[in-house]
Amino acid sequence: MAGNSFGTLFRVSTFGESHGPALGCVVDGCPAGIPLSVDDIRRDLRRRRPGHSPGSTTRQEGDEPEILSGVYEGKTLGTPIAILIRNRDQHSGDYEGLKDLYRPGHADWTWELKYGLRDPRGGGRSSGRETAGRVAAGAIARTFLARDGIVIQAWTASIGGIHAPVPGEEGFSLTEAEQNSLRVPGKKAAERIEALLGDLQKAEDSAGGLVSCRISGLPPGLGEPVFDKLSAILGRAILSIGACKGIQFGAGFAAAGSTGSAHNDTPVRGTGRPRAATGEAGPLLPGEAAVSPGPPDLSFKTNNAGGTLGGISTGMDVEFQAAFKPVASISRIQRTVDRYGAEQELSVPGRHDVCIVPRVVPVVEAMAALVLADLALRHRAAKV
Amino acid sequence: MAGNSFGTLFRVSTFGESHGPALGCVVDGCPAGIPLSVDDIRRDLRRRRPGHSPGSTTRQEGDEPEILSGVYEGKTLGTPIAILIRNRDQHSGDYEGLKDLYRPGHADWTWELKYGLRDPRGGGRSSGRETAGRVAAGAIARTFLARDGIVIQAWTASIGGIHAPVPGEEGFSLTEAEQNSLRVPGKKAAERIEALLGDLQKAEDSAGGLVSCRISGLPPGLGEPVFDKLSAILGRAILSIGACKGIQFGAGFAAAGSTGSAHNDTPVRGTGRPRAATGEAGPLLPGEAAVSPGPPDLSFKTNNAGGTLGGISTGMDVEFQAAFKPVASISRIQRTVDRYGAEQELSVPGRHDVCIVPRVVPVVEAMAALVLADLALRHRAAKV
Amino acid sequence: MAGNSFGTLFRVSTFGESHGPALGCVVDGCPAGIPLSVDDIRRDLRRRRPGHSPGSTTRQEGDEPEILSGVYEGKTLGTPIAILIRNRDQHSGDYEGLKDLYRPGHADWTWELKYGLRDPRGGGRSSGRETAGRVAAGAIARTFLARDGIVIQAWTASIGGIHAPVPGEEGFSLTEAEQNSLRVPGKKAAERIEALLGDLQKAEDSAGGLVSCRISGLPPGLGEPVFDKLSAILGRAILSIGACKGIQFGAGFAAAGSTGSAHNDTPVRGTGRPRAATGEAGPLLPGEAAVSPGPPDLSFKTNNAGGTLGGISTGMDVEFQAAFKPVASISRIQRTVDRYGAEQELSVPGRHDVCIVPRVVPVVEAMAALVLADLALRHRAAKV
Amino acid sequence: MAGNSFGTLFRVSTFGESHGPALGCVVDGCPAGIPLSVDDIRRDLRRRRPGHSPGSTTRQEGDEPEILSGVYEGKTLGTPIAILIRNRDQHSGDYEGLKDLYRPGHADWTWELKYGLRDPRGGGRSSGRETAGRVAAGAIARTFLARDGIVIQAWTASIGGIHAPVPGEEGFSLTEAEQNSLRVPGKKAAERIEALLGDLQKAEDSAGGLVSCRISGLPPGLGEPVFDKLSAILGRAILSIGACKGIQFGAGFAAAGSTGSAHNDTPVRGTGRPRAATGEAGPLLPGEAAVSPGPPDLSFKTNNAGGTLGGISTGMDVEFQAAFKPVASISRIQRTVDRYGAEQELSVPGRHDVCIVPRVVPVVEAMAALVLADLALRHRAAKV
Repeated sequence: MAGNSFGTLFRVSTFGESHGPALGCVVDGCPAGIPLSVDDIRRDLRRRRPGHSPGSTTRQEGDEPEILSGVYEGKTLGTPIAILIRNRDQHSGDYEGLKDLYRPGHADWTWELKYGLRDPRGGGRSSGRETAGRVAAGAIARTFLARDGIVIQAWTASIGGIHAPVPGEEGFSLTEAEQNSLRVPGKKAAERIEALLGDLQKAEDSAGGLVSCRISGLPPGLGEPVFDKLSAILGRAILSIGACKGIQFGAGFAAAGSTGSAHNDTPVRGTGRPRAATGEAGPLLPGEAAVSPGPPDLSFKTNNAGGTLGGISTGMDVEFQAAFKPVASISRIQRTVDRYGAEQELSVPGRHDVCIVPRVVPVVEAMAALVLADLALRHRAAKV
Repeated sequence: MAGNSFGTLFRVSTFGESHGPALGCVVDGCPAGIPLSVDDIRRDLRRRRPGHSPGSTTRQEGDEPEILSGVYEGKTLGTPIAILIRNRDQHSGDYEGLKDLYRPGHADWTWELKYGLRDPRGGGRSSGRETAGRVAAGAIARTFLARDGIVIQAWTASIGGIHAPVPGEEGFSLTEAEQNSLRVPGKKAAERIEALLGDLQKAEDSAGGLVSCRISGLPPGLGEPVFDKLSAILGRAILSIGACKGIQFGAGFAAAGSTGSAHNDTPVRGTGRPRAATGEAGPLLPGEAAVSPGPPDLSFKTNNAGGTLGGISTGMDVEFQAAFKPVASISRIQRTVDRYGAEQELSVPGRHDVCIVPRVVPVVEAMAALVLADLALRHRAAKV
Repeated sequence: MAGNSFGTLFRVSTFGESHGPALGCVVDGCPAGIPLSVDDIRRDLRRRRPGHSPGSTTRQEGDEPEILSGVYEGKTLGTPIAILIRNRDQHSGDYEGLKDLYRPGHADWTWELKYGLRDPRGGGRSSGRETAGRVAAGAIARTFLARDGIVIQAWTASIGGIHAPVPGEEGFSLTEAEQNSLRVPGKKAAERIEALLGDLQKAEDSAGGLVSCRISGLPPGLGEPVFDKLSAILGRAILSIGACKGIQFGAGFAAAGSTGSAHNDTPVRGTGRPRAATGEAGPLLPGEAAVSPGPPDLSFKTNNAGGTLGGISTGMDVEFQAAFKPVASISRIQRTVDRYGAEQELSVPGRHDVCIVPRVVPVVEAMAALVLADLALRHRAAKV
Repeated sequence: MAGNSFGTLFRVSTFGESHGPALGCVVDGCPAGIPLSVDDIRRDLRRRRPGHSPGSTTRQEGDEPEILSGVYEGKTLGTPIAILIRNRDQHSGDYEGLKDLYRPGHADWTWELKYGLRDPRGGGRSSGRETAGRVAAGAIARTFLARDGIVIQAWTASIGGIHAPVPGEEGFSLTEAEQNSLRVPGKKAAERIEALLGDLQKAEDSAGGLVSCRISGLPPGLGEPVFDKLSAILGRAILSIGACKGIQFGAGFAAAGSTGSAHNDTPVRGTGRPRAATGEAGPLLPGEAAVSPGPPDLSFKTNNAGGTLGGISTGMDVEFQAAFKPVASISRIQRTVDRYGAEQELSVPGRHDVCIVPRVVPVVEAMAALVLADLALRHRAAKV
């Protein structure tokens, strides 16, 4: 298990190098009977493609997916779903000068040390292009979850220190986030960030940022103690995305400076959500109905917990935020070392993004979907 | 797999409820031939015990471990190492009044909803007492890692908003951290925090805090792409500790506001560490020697990356910080709901800590040790 | 994962050496809400104890189990169930002369070569005593399965070439099998085998034999394609029992000489079993009810398939037979090699069985129960 | 984990339906640095193709593999190796009449019951065509193992009750087995079997048979106690091949009627093999060299054990035999039931083999190779 698989019951394996023949994924364990079309996959892959803002690579990734197996007459069969995405428009020549140089901030040296060799073209499998396979698999998970009203939405919370409005704040709009190529939920912030990215491009530099994510419609009960808490598995999933340097749930790091009386979320009666959305009696969790009378419906006055208690979903929105470092590839001259141990200067060529954050948004959603689909299936085994 | 196991090759399973007969762990996959005694386990368990500061529970957890298997004549056999820790001094009566009440900030309700029943005595398996099994297993991993010069040390970075000195800052001392029961690496900060905890105890309230951790002596090459990056697996491990709300590596959340030119760590020749500590030619990673000539030794001028690139260790210190929420159990009156759906008031009885952070320090170290032991073994399979 | 764990969702880890302090198991993933007492465990452990026939060791294995966790007020909590069995009446001195000798037919040499050291007392973990942990875990699985009417019964089919009656044959009686200590389902065969074992004991020799097993009440649908077919997972489970040299399902090896027209089992309408026993609408497989109208109930005129098609249970009895080699420890003089490479003669001392087959019967049942409990839980994830 | 993955460190996932767009596999965990070309894959796939004997389907499976990832400049990268095999020459129309009929001896009904729907074209994923993915993956494992002199060879031991010569017997020739399309290691037996298959074809019937396999050059030490014994994992691997009804190792079922004094293999000094083939000091198992002085080299006078003791390889040849039932698809009229519960007659149309055994030979080898590659990598973690 060299680390390219994820999940226990809803399990994805991804494959592919940036400039190899193809990328893709195999999803084993998706339940049978779910309507699934290539359009469901294509939609999410498109959201991952380079945009048209100043900060975006000009590589044209067609990313046309093909479903190779696991679907028959428009429905999943319960067998592995393999998805193939051919690589096109590779400019491998761009990387010719880099095969003996270790790019700062990249995995070139660690990879070569670990494996004894590497594919230098576009970073090989350590490239961000690897996430295409994740997004394809996540689209399947999302389709499965949508049947139970579970919605996952992420957005750009900040870039280069410029913050977008936060939920509840004036100007915050997820519709807006989907309309601008930066995935920023506020028009003014989007404009300021676009300007910043233009400046950075001229300066041959790059930016990092924050991605926020909200999962709504999630039934309570998902997540497994002790090591497989919902937050722990989500954390691993998001931290496995290249460039991710941190994650926080609910009140997050601010909770460390708070007090119990201020931080504890007060339980109140009722879910505050329509029964149909809770999932307890729905097709996702068929075992639930057997429990009688069972604990009462609860909700919470606040959501400092970010939607989990003891690692198990509470039915409140799951909310988290992840930090991504600036793009490592910059045209500006940097110092480094070559494979013969000599110190060198380099300017990273190729068509790289100034900021990867807007394109990470669908990847964060995909990873969250994979986590939830797996935990939803595992939850079915919790009680008799 | 209900979530009580961790690791692929160096694999631990833990068991036990807070007020049941015993807790413990089974470690499967520890290599044979490692000297191991019950003292190695006892030492780490003692660091986890309640201290004598104002913020500490008065429950006397003897936590005397017994090695049931896997060790013969002082050496590991390669077979499962089972460790038993009997529960003593339980005051289960304290929890009698709580069996029908859902404590705010605890997993009572989510657990009952998930499983249909729960052990209300001390929170059952959702109790922090569960971490005794982790610490026992971590002590084994630590013994294994120490043979290669890998050292893991965590400390209290802040409590209730009062920050300890950071590495490099005047007054920062890990010796000091081990000497005070708060694990704070600075005398003055320790005194201020002790005062704060006294105040909070009088106010029937509690505090959260930050734990920092540094792993030194780690050879480069550990961690597996894509989903099993060192940072991702460490993240899952730490986020699986109860009350953890976030984690960041290296520059962490600050990286989100930085630029590529400022954030990228510049590679330089040589490791800056004695060859013996790198592990490349050592017994941990026997395959390394076969690579010839292989990439040159590198080090980095800075360590914004926190010791990993592309999810693989660089040989620099691995550095991370985790946020823990305030203790949920407070004596102050809180509102909640009972299992019949009625709103109630409660004051959580029992002997609870005002701040769990100092006792989390050895748990963080244990989880980090488990991660590294597993990735060290997995790394052996990376190349021919 | 050094191989001491088994199962995906209903997952057991066992531990313990033959002459160490204790043996036991941890079962993670047993659903919550199942009535379970120490008597349920004790009952199966007793069936595994040495009997009083000529062929049985005189070691008195009290095998008193203690439930350390996972059960509260007589019901499973959904948390890990740890069971402890203290070793008693070890005569480790018997093995003093063996620590430098590799016993023929035992794992002494392979073990020492693999791990660099071994516990020579009673074979350490390679001892048949290791199966106590399996039987304890299997008792939990059996309790879970019994709720749905699934019954697993094994018996001694032959010893030393003397065959017991087969199902359908005159004299075949499973009641009889449970009454004699040889687990032979026929009085006359039992007497003949008892005489043979007496002869072999005098001759300082040992015998092997066959164990047959029948699983009835199993609902159709259990087993996962491609690699996790019910027969494949059962095969691994049974072949993992020490001394097992082969397994066959249904017609087994005889099928290799048959023709399609003779071997194919003809489907007929109806289950031939009371609806309540099919499990389709029962609590085991709650998702089943959602399928409408679904395929009709089927049964088969014959059962050459042994209860599976395409690796999935058909609802017919699952039937298999396993071959066990003769006990390797014999008092008769054998030639071998010592750890210094010198050829030696030895007579294995200690209290060993002349034939292990009767005591393997409950181990076969335990492993089958573990397989079915796991596949039953996994099956819940098959469809929406 | 719906069962389409296999292995812990050297892990394969396969995908594809018989009449879908493609089949294939993803191998995660193959070490880096191994020379691998598409020819290595193609060679084994060709051995699996329909032959020209009377018993063979006339479907022309081109089975042209494409390596999509994981190989760069002719060497493995340590990243997932994905292999794609397009389906061609499907005659899905042949199966139109079968979509409402449950074919005897096939998984049609169990599959539909389990998943609620199925792909009726050629049996979908329950088709023997699924093994193409296994063979492709096995070719990678075989290439890895061949570097250490490990050779896996299987052959047809009997068909329809006609037995080929056994090793040591006059006329036994593995060269001959590779030259005739039946994989029978003896010319006369091959001719008799060919005649039998011609007769069965005329009679619209089919045959089963036995496959024997021998693994030579295997170093001692592979296999993990307790549940992951070499024999147990091999057993699962082979029993997971469609139509397999049994497996036996070494003396196998005959051991059940033997005595300890006759069955035990006597250890003797020395390996009886050239040192280079033992692997102890070779690149496969680098940790071995560290053990000093370690146990002496041993061999055994006989090999009733079939190459394992305590589930760990002894260095003797691993020998096993598997039984395969007759092909279920026959043209002869059979009775069955349709999806509306009505009893029907059917003659299975399509191009089916009279006997699958010769084509199973490379599948058996592939599964054995996957098992050994995985256990070889896992063995590296056994000692310090």
